[in-house]
Amino acid sequence: MQRLESALGEAADAVNRTLDRLVPPVDGAERRVIEAMRYALMGGGKRIRPFLVLNSARLFEVPEIGALRAAAAIEMVHSYSLVHDDLPAMDNADLRRGRPSVHRQFDEATAILAGDGLLTQAFEVLAAEETHANPLVRAELVLALAQAAGAAGMVGGQMIDLEAQHARLDLAAITRLQQLKTGAIIRFSCEAGAILASAPTKERRALQHYADDLGLAFQIADDLLDVESSAAVTGKPVGQDQAAGKATFVAVLGVDEARRRAKAIADRAASHLAGFEERADLLCAMAQFVVNRRS
Amino acid sequence: MQRLESALGEAADAVNRTLDRLVPPVDGAERRVIEAMRYALMGGGKRIRPFLVLNSARLFEVPEIGALRAAAAIEMVHSYSLVHDDLPAMDNADLRRGRPSVHRQFDEATAILAGDGLLTQAFEVLAAEETHANPLVRAELVLALAQAAGAAGMVGGQMIDLEAQHARLDLAAITRLQQLKTGAIIRFSCEAGAILASAPTKERRALQHYADDLGLAFQIADDLLDVESSAAVTGKPVGQDQAAGKATFVAVLGVDEARRRAKAIADRAASHLAGFEERADLLCAMAQFVVNRRS
Repeated sequence: MQRLESALGEAADAVNRTLDRLVPPVDGAERRVIEAMRYALMGGGKRIRPFLVLNSARLFEVPEIGALRAAAAIEMVHSYSLVHDDLPAMDNADLRRGRPSVHRQFDEATAILAGDGLLTQAFEVLAAEETHANPLVRAELVLALAQAAGAAGMVGGQMIDLEAQHARLDLAAITRLQQLKTGAIIRFSCEAGAILASAPTKERRALQHYADDLGLAFQIADDLLDVESSAAVTGKPVGQDQAAGKATFVAVLGVDEARRRAKAIADRAASHLAGFEERADLLCAMAQFVVNRRS
Repeated sequence: MQRLESALGEAADAVNRTLDRLVPPVDGAERRVIEAMRYALMGGGKRIRPFLVLNSARLFEVPEIGALRAAAAIEMVHSYSLVHDDLPAMDNADLRRGRPSVHRQFDEATAILAGDGLLTQAFEVLAAEETHANPLVRAELVLALAQAAGAAGMVGGQMIDLEAQHARLDLAAITRLQQLKTGAIIRFSCEAGAILASAPTKERRALQHYADDLGLAFQIADDLLDVESSAAVTGKPVGQDQAAGKATFVAVLGVDEARRRAKAIADRAASHLAGFEERADLLCAMAQFVVNRRS
């Protein structure tokens, strides 16, 4: 587990440097939106998605620069989704990772634009030649990210989540909500390495199955943290899902069953990577990490 | 001019059919965001950007399906920008094209998500194989659209526009605002045909110069309409830029000088296309159309 934590730290440092280079401060009259984009990107976070990109790419010995750019693009999309989800019209969250959310630090209009800018730049990064010499790989990355992030993925999931405040979801509905809202981007994070490597279908499938289980375990653990942890540890108010009457795995399954399932699904996630042998050790350790984390 | 108007109508019909196919209604729990995306897309409008894509593509005899998909992608980006710009935190506009704006017809959260979904899908459409058999062309389309729409383009322009409410802009600053906020996407609309055709640099440059002048003439004419037209004709409240103290060409140049410049710039726009001879007649007529339109 110590090896995983240092690998996570290294991935975070590397992607932070890449993001800092890709979104430099500017002097023009539009600098405020760039400042807000940087604020959103540089707020910390464990950078789990970039870790997944970098380590799925390493399975195939993909050159690091392409993997880092793909990781940065995914983190841009993840950050944009947090900025927009935090808006008053959505989750109305004042805090994010222990700091004021973007619309509290700047203002609502700037937060909307910063999210739009981050989402747009993610595609710019993937489509640029520096990401991969083969344009087919770049087009595939763009296509897969757009599918994961759009109305059939993350955006659709957030819509379902908002609608769920007026309806009681059963386990199947909550599972679909998770697949769209958080699962699709986690899946793309793991697929990106395979796309960058033009890997065979079998290995790409294995990574998809791993990612789907990882995402599910991650979300169940997240719901558990919401009821069990403290604001000091997670950097955001606790119990807010429950207070908002949000559909969560814990609400449907109860704490004990949710914890049992998260662990079983994390074990299953690792099993999909057996074909990669010890090269997948860090990804397997990540599956344990997401269910054991305290924040 | 009659030929232009029927060509505009045909382009609008064709792109509307394409959009209807690309964003079909869905049955899932996320259907509300798709409905809002369709509402935003299907609200009418002259479809000037799609017209520019289709007619720049025709200069090079590009297959129509690719041009239609690129046109649809640009209209998705244009529609998303209107949805987000209309939000209460931005321009707070209740009306758009004579109908309630998306956040008035649905709600703010749905409008934010619908915009996000449209922006994301634009890149999905461009990156998909149906748009062009050559992946390099698809990657180039994605890259150019992202550059035009992002913080160095449309998003940056909207930021400047919002900031301008607290500062008086001079002509140079307003011109830069226009280049970013509306000019970049108009430029991409004309470039898209050249990218689809892998056209030589010289012809691509000619289209860029035409587009830059067209966009500028378009914006000056838009500012004139804001002070001169009536709500019944434009489908949105009149004089709202003036009331909001917004930076406009009319505010800086006055009505007469603004009208004179719009006409001169429209003439110059057409001159850049001389090398295409009569094949560019419709694009040249469009330059006159944007300064003579009444809505």
